[in-house]
Amino acid sequence: MNVATMKTGALTQALVLERAGELSLRPIEIEESMGPNDVRIDIHTVGVCGSDVHYYQHGSIGPFVVNEPMILGHEASGTISELGSSVRGLRVGDRVCMEPGVPDAESRAARLGMYNLDPDVRFWATPPVHGCLRPSVVHPAAYTFKVPDNVSFAEAAMIEPLAVGLHAANKANVRAGDLAVVLGAGPIGMVTALSALAAGASRVVISDVQQTKLDLAATLGAITPVNVAEASLEQEIGRLTDGWGADVVFEASGNERAAAGVFDCLRPGGCVVYIGMPSGPIPYDVLAASVKEARVEHVFRYANVYPQAISLMANGKIDVKPLITDTYTFAESVEAFDFAAAMPAGSVKVQIALG
Amino acid sequence: MNVATMKTGALTQALVLERAGELSLRPIEIEESMGPNDVRIDIHTVGVCGSDVHYYQHGSIGPFVVNEPMILGHEASGTISELGSSVRGLRVGDRVCMEPGVPDAESRAARLGMYNLDPDVRFWATPPVHGCLRPSVVHPAAYTFKVPDNVSFAEAAMIEPLAVGLHAANKANVRAGDLAVVLGAGPIGMVTALSALAAGASRVVISDVQQTKLDLAATLGAITPVNVAEASLEQEIGRLTDGWGADVVFEASGNERAAAGVFDCLRPGGCVVYIGMPSGPIPYDVLAASVKEARVEHVFRYANVYPQAISLMANGKIDVKPLITDTYTFAESVEAFDFAAAMPAGSVKVQIALG
Amino acid sequence: MNVATMKTGALTQALVLERAGELSLRPIEIEESMGPNDVRIDIHTVGVCGSDVHYYQHGSIGPFVVNEPMILGHEASGTISELGSSVRGLRVGDRVCMEPGVPDAESRAARLGMYNLDPDVRFWATPPVHGCLRPSVVHPAAYTFKVPDNVSFAEAAMIEPLAVGLHAANKANVRAGDLAVVLGAGPIGMVTALSALAAGASRVVISDVQQTKLDLAATLGAITPVNVAEASLEQEIGRLTDGWGADVVFEASGNERAAAGVFDCLRPGGCVVYIGMPSGPIPYDVLAASVKEARVEHVFRYANVYPQAISLMANGKIDVKPLITDTYTFAESVEAFDFAAAMPAGSVKVQIALG
Amino acid sequence: MNVATMKTGALTQALVLERAGELSLRPIEIEESMGPNDVRIDIHTVGVCGSDVHYYQHGSIGPFVVNEPMILGHEASGTISELGSSVRGLRVGDRVCMEPGVPDAESRAARLGMYNLDPDVRFWATPPVHGCLRPSVVHPAAYTFKVPDNVSFAEAAMIEPLAVGLHAANKANVRAGDLAVVLGAGPIGMVTALSALAAGASRVVISDVQQTKLDLAATLGAITPVNVAEASLEQEIGRLTDGWGADVVFEASGNERAAAGVFDCLRPGGCVVYIGMPSGPIPYDVLAASVKEARVEHVFRYANVYPQAISLMANGKIDVKPLITDTYTFAESVEAFDFAAAMPAGSVKVQIALG
Repeated sequence: MNVATMKTGALTQALVLERAGELSLRPIEIEESMGPNDVRIDIHTVGVCGSDVHYYQHGSIGPFVVNEPMILGHEASGTISELGSSVRGLRVGDRVCMEPGVPDAESRAARLGMYNLDPDVRFWATPPVHGCLRPSVVHPAAYTFKVPDNVSFAEAAMIEPLAVGLHAANKANVRAGDLAVVLGAGPIGMVTALSALAAGASRVVISDVQQTKLDLAATLGAITPVNVAEASLEQEIGRLTDGWGADVVFEASGNERAAAGVFDCLRPGGCVVYIGMPSGPIPYDVLAASVKEARVEHVFRYANVYPQAISLMANGKIDVKPLITDTYTFAESVEAFDFAAAMPAGSVKVQIALG
Repeated sequence: MNVATMKTGALTQALVLERAGELSLRPIEIEESMGPNDVRIDIHTVGVCGSDVHYYQHGSIGPFVVNEPMILGHEASGTISELGSSVRGLRVGDRVCMEPGVPDAESRAARLGMYNLDPDVRFWATPPVHGCLRPSVVHPAAYTFKVPDNVSFAEAAMIEPLAVGLHAANKANVRAGDLAVVLGAGPIGMVTALSALAAGASRVVISDVQQTKLDLAATLGAITPVNVAEASLEQEIGRLTDGWGADVVFEASGNERAAAGVFDCLRPGGCVVYIGMPSGPIPYDVLAASVKEARVEHVFRYANVYPQAISLMANGKIDVKPLITDTYTFAESVEAFDFAAAMPAGSVKVQIALG
Repeated sequence: MNVATMKTGALTQALVLERAGELSLRPIEIEESMGPNDVRIDIHTVGVCGSDVHYYQHGSIGPFVVNEPMILGHEASGTISELGSSVRGLRVGDRVCMEPGVPDAESRAARLGMYNLDPDVRFWATPPVHGCLRPSVVHPAAYTFKVPDNVSFAEAAMIEPLAVGLHAANKANVRAGDLAVVLGAGPIGMVTALSALAAGASRVVISDVQQTKLDLAATLGAITPVNVAEASLEQEIGRLTDGWGADVVFEASGNERAAAGVFDCLRPGGCVVYIGMPSGPIPYDVLAASVKEARVEHVFRYANVYPQAISLMANGKIDVKPLITDTYTFAESVEAFDFAAAMPAGSVKVQIALG
Repeated sequence: MNVATMKTGALTQALVLERAGELSLRPIEIEESMGPNDVRIDIHTVGVCGSDVHYYQHGSIGPFVVNEPMILGHEASGTISELGSSVRGLRVGDRVCMEPGVPDAESRAARLGMYNLDPDVRFWATPPVHGCLRPSVVHPAAYTFKVPDNVSFAEAAMIEPLAVGLHAANKANVRAGDLAVVLGAGPIGMVTALSALAAGASRVVISDVQQTKLDLAATLGAITPVNVAEASLEQEIGRLTDGWGADVVFEASGNERAAAGVFDCLRPGGCVVYIGMPSGPIPYDVLAASVKEARVEHVFRYANVYPQAISLMANGKIDVKPLITDTYTFAESVEAFDFAAAMPAGSVKVQIALG
C-alpha cells in the first residue's frame, strides 16, 4: 500500500458541531492520510476561539457555511506520536503547537511568503475542514512547532491567538518607544496589547466600555485603560503625547464606530492596523487619514509568526497565563462552549484540556 | 536696516480673489521680507489647479476660508532675479520652479522628513497666504529648484502637479513590472498614470466615465483606458492578470463610489493609495481589505519629490507637454479661470504665461 | 504503476560536461519522474551563462564540483508538451520560460518568500543537477511561466539573466527619478542597467574599462558610459548630481577594486547592491559607509521575479534583443561554448537554438 | 541691538582640552548668541564618552583635529534657565537633555529626515565646536527635550549614548521575538543590547573577550554572554536557533576580525548593523553575505531618537542605571578623564555631576 493513500478512517471521539446551535461530543469517522512530510499529534489542550463560538451560534461566518457535521477547535497544543518518513527536525514525544492553516506551498501567494492569503488554504474548523477537538490529528511537519519545556501545554495553545496580535504588530512595524493604542479589550485586543509591548511599545493605551476587561488589561504591563463610555480617548492620547498623537492604532474591537475613528488619535505618519472585522462597510475619513499620511494595514490571520511567538513566551517576554481564565476537560466540552458563548465579563480565554 | 526686516511693501499687479466668485487682475500691496536664505523669482508661468478654481467658485476648501483678498496660483516657474546673502547653489538668472509650501524646518514633522505634514506649513494660495500669480515672489532657496535648459517654463510649472503623482507612486513603492490602476482621468489621474509608468509599472489601467479624457490618457504611454460607464474594471484587471489582481490601485477620482471599490481589483498583498479627497466619509470594506492584507496609503501634497520630478522630465522619462492644453497671458488671467471653471472635456491643464 | 515513481529513463541527446575542459554533444541516460504538478517542456532556446562557461573551464564553482558528467544550461525557453494531472493554468502548446532553481516549498526560507535561499534548492547545471541543454525537460508547473506571443523564444531565454538584474533593482528599491550607477558592463551589468531604468532610474551611469562594451551599453537607453581607465567615476557622478551622489550603486563587476569603492559616489542614505561575486574577501570601508548611512544589499539569484520580467518585456519596457549577439544551433553547441569562453569584445549573450 | 547678534562673551569655567594629553578646568571666554528659538540650559550631568577620551589622548579623530583649546563633553542633562522669544513647549525650570548635534535644518539631508548626515552639522566637542562641560549652554529648543520627573539627571545624560543603540535597533528593524547578537560589550555594545531587547528581541547574545564586561552584561536582561576567547559564537547561535542563525547582528566592537565575521551567525535574510568604526578597511566576504541575502546597515550617530529613548526610560522599559558605574564632581573632571582613559575593567560609564 502506498503511503500517500494510507487512511486512518477509524471512528474517533470529537466535539462535533452538528448544525447551528447543536454540539455533540461523540464518535465521528475521519479519513486522514499520513504522508511522508506529516506528523501525528496527540492533542493536549485546545482553546475556544470567538470564531468557534460564532459557528456554534450561527452555523456560518461570512461565506463559510457549516453544511455537514464539523469538528471544532483550532488553537491547539499536543505531543508528537508518529513521524512521516521524510520528517526532519521533529521527534516522537516532542511537545508542539500547530498552525491550523495549511496552504498550497506552491501557490503564488505562498511563494511570495504570504501563505495565509492563499485562497486554497485549508484551515481547521473552517468548513468543510475539521478542527482539532479530538484525541489526535495528522498535520504537516512544516506547520508543527516544537515548544520548549518551560512553556506549558496551556500556554502553547495560546500561541495561535497570540500570533494574530504579533502579526498585527509586525505589520505596524512597532518601534521601541512607540505609544500604541488598542481599541477593544477582548481576547484579541489583549494579545495585541501584549504583542505591541513585546515589539517595543513603551506604553499601550487600551480602550473599551467594559470596565472589568479594562481592569484585567491594566494588570498585564505598561497598559493604560481608557473607558470610552466615560472618557475621551483622543484627549488621553493628546495628554500623553503633548498633542502629537499615537504612533500606532490597532483596531481590535470590530465595532463600527471605533473602527471609523482610528485617525483621531494618530500622529502624523502613524500607522493603523485593522484586526477586528466589522460586520459591514464602515465610514472612513479619507481627509483625516490624508492630512496625517496615515499608513493603514490589514491582517488576515498570520504567517511566519509561530517561531517568534514561541521565542517570546520561552524567554519570558510575553506571559499569556493571566489570559487563561477558564479550563474544562474534554468531557465538559459542550459546557465549555456554552460558558464561552455567554461571554462572562471576567473571562478571557476558555480552554479544553484533553491530555 | 537689518536684512531680516527688509520689506518690499510696494504695490504689485496680481490675480486677486476678492471673494467667492469674484476675481480681479489689479494692483495689491504685499509685504515681503527678503531674508539671507531667500531668493526673489520673476514668475514666468503659473498653472491653474483645481484648488485655485475651487477657491474661486466657493471661497473655501474645508477649514480654509478666504476672508480677505488673496492672490491665487501655486504651480509656478520663473527666473531668479535676486539672491539672499547666504544662498549657495543658485544664481541670478537660473530658471527655477518652486515648492509652494514652506514648513517650519525645525518642527517635529519636518525633522522626521515629513515637512508636508507640519501643521504650520505656509502654502501659496491657501488662506491667508498669497499665491504667486504676480510678477515676482520672494521664496526660500531651499524650496527653489533649478531647472535644466531642456525643460521649458511651461513644463517646469507642471512639476508641482506632477509631484503629487510621484509622491503617490513613491508611497505605493511601485516596482518594475507592476500593473497599476488609476481611478479617475482628471489632471491628477493623468500625472499619477505618468508617474506610475515612470516608477516601473509595465502598464497602467485608467478608468473614468468621460471618454474624451480616456482617449487622451491612452495616448500617453502603455495606458489602457476603461470606461466604467460601459465596462467592468474588475473584469478587465482579472483578464490582464489571470485573476491575480493589480499590484497598486491609485484612487484619484475623489468619487465616493470609486473610492469605496478600491479592493475589488487588487492582488493579495497589493497597495491602495488614496489621492483624491472625497467630500465626506466613504464606505470602507475592512473585510475585503483584510483577506488581501491590503496596504493603504494616503498622501498630502508631497515632500522631497521635486529633484526626482525634474530629473525625470530632463531625461525624457516623463513628458507632460500633452497635458498642457490651454495657455493664456497674464492679462487674460480671469478669462483663464473662467475657462478652467467650465471644465471643458478636452482640457487638462490651463496655464498662464507671465514671462 | 504509481505516478510519483514513473521514470523516463531513456537516452537523450544533450550537451554534456564530461569534466573540466571537455564537452560532448552525445546521448545520455536521464531518470526523470513526471509528477502530478509537473509539466514536460520541449526546449527551444538556451542561453550560455558565465557560470556554464566557468564549469566548462574549471569544473567547479566554489563548493560545487562536477564529479560526474553533467548536462549544462539553465537559461531556457520552450513549449509545453505534457501536463501533470494536477496542473492548472498551463496548457500543452504554451510557450514558456522556466526558473532553473526548484526549492523545497515548505522549507523555512521558502515559507518566508525567500525560496532562493533554501539550501536544498535544486538548480539546473549546478552539480549534481543536470541542466537543460537537451530536447526536453520535466519541471514543476509552479516554476514554469507562460510567455505572451509578442515575446520570442530567444527573448524568453533572456528572462533568466534579466531576473538577476530585476531582483537587484527590487532590493535597491529604485525610485522614479533616481540616478543609478552600475559597475561593470558585462551581461549582468547590462541587464542590471536595463532593470534600473525600467524600475524608474532617470539615468544610469555604467562603468567599465572595455570601450566596446560601454559603446554598446550607451545604445540601450538613458545610459552614460564612463571608461574608468580614463575618467573618474566619482567626478562624473559629482558633476551630474551637484555633489550629492548617486541614489543606488550596483556592483556588477566582481572586481575587487571596484567592489571596494562603492561608497565613493553614493549619496547620503543611498543603497549599494552587490551582484558580482569577487573571488575572495574585499576591503570594505565601514567609515565611508557610516557617514552616509549606506544600506548595503546582497542578492543570490532571484525570487518571485519572472512575472515582473515577462510583463516588462511584453509591454516593451525592456528590450533585451540588442544583448543577444550570437546564436548557434544545438549541433554547434560545443562551438558555441568555445566562442563564449573566448569572450570576444563585441559579444554579450550567446544562445543555442534547439527548436 | 538685534537678538541674532546678542553675545554673552563672558568668561566661564569649563573643562578645556588644551591639546592632546592636556586638560584644564579653567575659565574660558565663549561667544554665544541666544536666538529666538534657543534656550539656555544650566548643565547638571555630563557623561564621558570614548570620543572625548580619544580627543584627550590623541588630539584628533580622523579628519577632526583639535587645533585650539576646546571644551569637551556632549552627553548632557540640565535645567532650562532662559527661553528664546519664539520657543514654545518648553519652560524655565524644565529638566532636559539635549541632542549635541545641530544641523542646518534646511539642508537636503535634513529635509529628508536624515539631519545627522548633514555635512554642516555642528556637534558638541567635535572641533572646532565647544562641548558642554561648563555651567551653562545655549542650545536650539528643537534639539532640547523635556525629561519626566521619574528620570534622574544621571539617567538623562545617558540618553545620548542610548540613542546610538536605539538608532541601530531602528535601522535593523528588530521585531518581537528576534534573536540579536551584539559583538562587543563596551558601553555602546551595552546600550545596543538594551535597545535590541527594548525593540523586541527575545534574547541577545553578546560577545567579548573581557569576562568582567560579559558578567555585567548578563545581569541586564535576557542576555547570553559568550566569551569568544573560549567559545565559538557561531556554534552558540547555531545551538540556540537549530542552525537557522540570528535575525540581527550588531557589530559594536570596532574590532577588525569581529567586523569581518558578521555573516557567520546570521540567518538567511538577516540584517547586520555596523556601529563600531574599525580604524581601517575590513575584509568583507561578499559571497557569505550573498548566499544569505544579508541586509547591511550603517549608522552615524542618530536622528529623531530622543523622544523614543526618553519614553522607554520613563516607562521602565530600559534601565541604564547599572551602566553608570562612576560619578565625579565638576572639580574632579580631569581626574574623571584620567580614570576613564585607564579603562578599568569594571567601569562602563563615567559621569561628571555639575549640578
